[in-house]
Amino acid sequence: MTGSSSAADATERFGVSNLNRVRRHPERAHYDRATVHDILDRGLVAHVAFVDQGRPIVIPMTYGRDDDRIYLHGARKGRVATATNGEPVSIGVTLVDGLVIARSLFDSSMNYRAVVIHGRAVELEHRAERLHALRCISEHVLPGRWDEVREPSEQELKGTVVLAVEIEAASAKVRAHGVGHGNEPGDERVWAGVIPISTTVGSPMQDPEVPAGVPVPPSVVRMCGGG
Amino acid sequence: MTGSSSAADATERFGVSNLNRVRRHPERAHYDRATVHDILDRGLVAHVAFVDQGRPIVIPMTYGRDDDRIYLHGARKGRVATATNGEPVSIGVTLVDGLVIARSLFDSSMNYRAVVIHGRAVELEHRAERLHALRCISEHVLPGRWDEVREPSEQELKGTVVLAVEIEAASAKVRAHGVGHGNEPGDERVWAGVIPISTTVGSPMQDPEVPAGVPVPPSVVRMCGGG
Repeated sequence: MTGSSSAADATERFGVSNLNRVRRHPERAHYDRATVHDILDRGLVAHVAFVDQGRPIVIPMTYGRDDDRIYLHGARKGRVATATNGEPVSIGVTLVDGLVIARSLFDSSMNYRAVVIHGRAVELEHRAERLHALRCISEHVLPGRWDEVREPSEQELKGTVVLAVEIEAASAKVRAHGVGHGNEPGDERVWAGVIPISTTVGSPMQDPEVPAGVPVPPSVVRMCGGG
Repeated sequence: MTGSSSAADATERFGVSNLNRVRRHPERAHYDRATVHDILDRGLVAHVAFVDQGRPIVIPMTYGRDDDRIYLHGARKGRVATATNGEPVSIGVTLVDGLVIARSLFDSSMNYRAVVIHGRAVELEHRAERLHALRCISEHVLPGRWDEVREPSEQELKGTVVLAVEIEAASAKVRAHGVGHGNEPGDERVWAGVIPISTTVGSPMQDPEVPAGVPVPPSVVRMCGGG
């Protein structure tokens, strides 16, 4: 997992620099596009960090992905829109898979899949690009929904800032195993194990104003495990 | 939800400044300590943003809380430990409660509870303070576990950096309701509703090397819904 630069690396792996090198537990690091993309695609919320008047700010946002480009959107008067255009951002997406309950607190940990992206946010100006980005965000959150509803109106588009972040550097960090041995005498008699944690999707709660006869759309049926 | 400064505010609410004022959907903003603390206490992972060589960096971390102080820990050679001591950080904790599937993409949203904290990370030096912080982090992740296992050894403590972040400014943002009306003709015939999302804790998977007769500890039984 070093930053060598064969031809394959250029297409399959992100380069490794001081910006994205995983320092702690480098054996958990992954720099290949497939792993980075997979975690991004499974996450729901990204935590977007930027610098505003010299201070770091982190904001949770929905997002979408197309190849190595992350799309964000927000209201025109929102903080992200006004502070990040043209500026560097860091985007974190983390999936928690379990609590690792070791024989000591020191060895206790979590199982997780996490991605940290570095890039620069650039506002999209052209209508087609903006619509494509909004479609990517919508399809990321609920695949299939975009084609079930009308396109955004001109007024809705006008009030929305759409940002693209080309991935300049990325790393994934994954822990997905059990518990190690203890380090101190007596540790071997202590209970240890993993508590699995997962995200569960419930049954859809239909809005009371939906007219009789309007079916639950396929996108919602699929998301809720019905198809 | 404005930044008035009565005596009650000083103890029950965080002050509101440009640093933490919620600009978008201010009706979702909460600045009271009870709401901020509750969301922090229910989260598992914080996304910690800091500035490293002029760039924003976001890293997922476990954490603990004691009153208005957030505790973080990491390996001494880790990036957070080396880059944040004495520096401003922003800490985001987000709970996703549902997908809000509106009649239009524009009105679609999520139900969520999110907190953003601003403060300065300071490394703790004194043994008792460090142990208290580590206990808060441990008890945050798995309440009761601290007293079931041995204290960290001197060697384990030596390799661990413990940081305290006094909350300088904080805001919570909460969306917890259904779907609005549409904005365009025809929207009223479109299905709308909320898909609930929750975090589920599974049954503990015991490490195969746990000796026969060692029971599942109370902390794990409680976390997994058994007590």
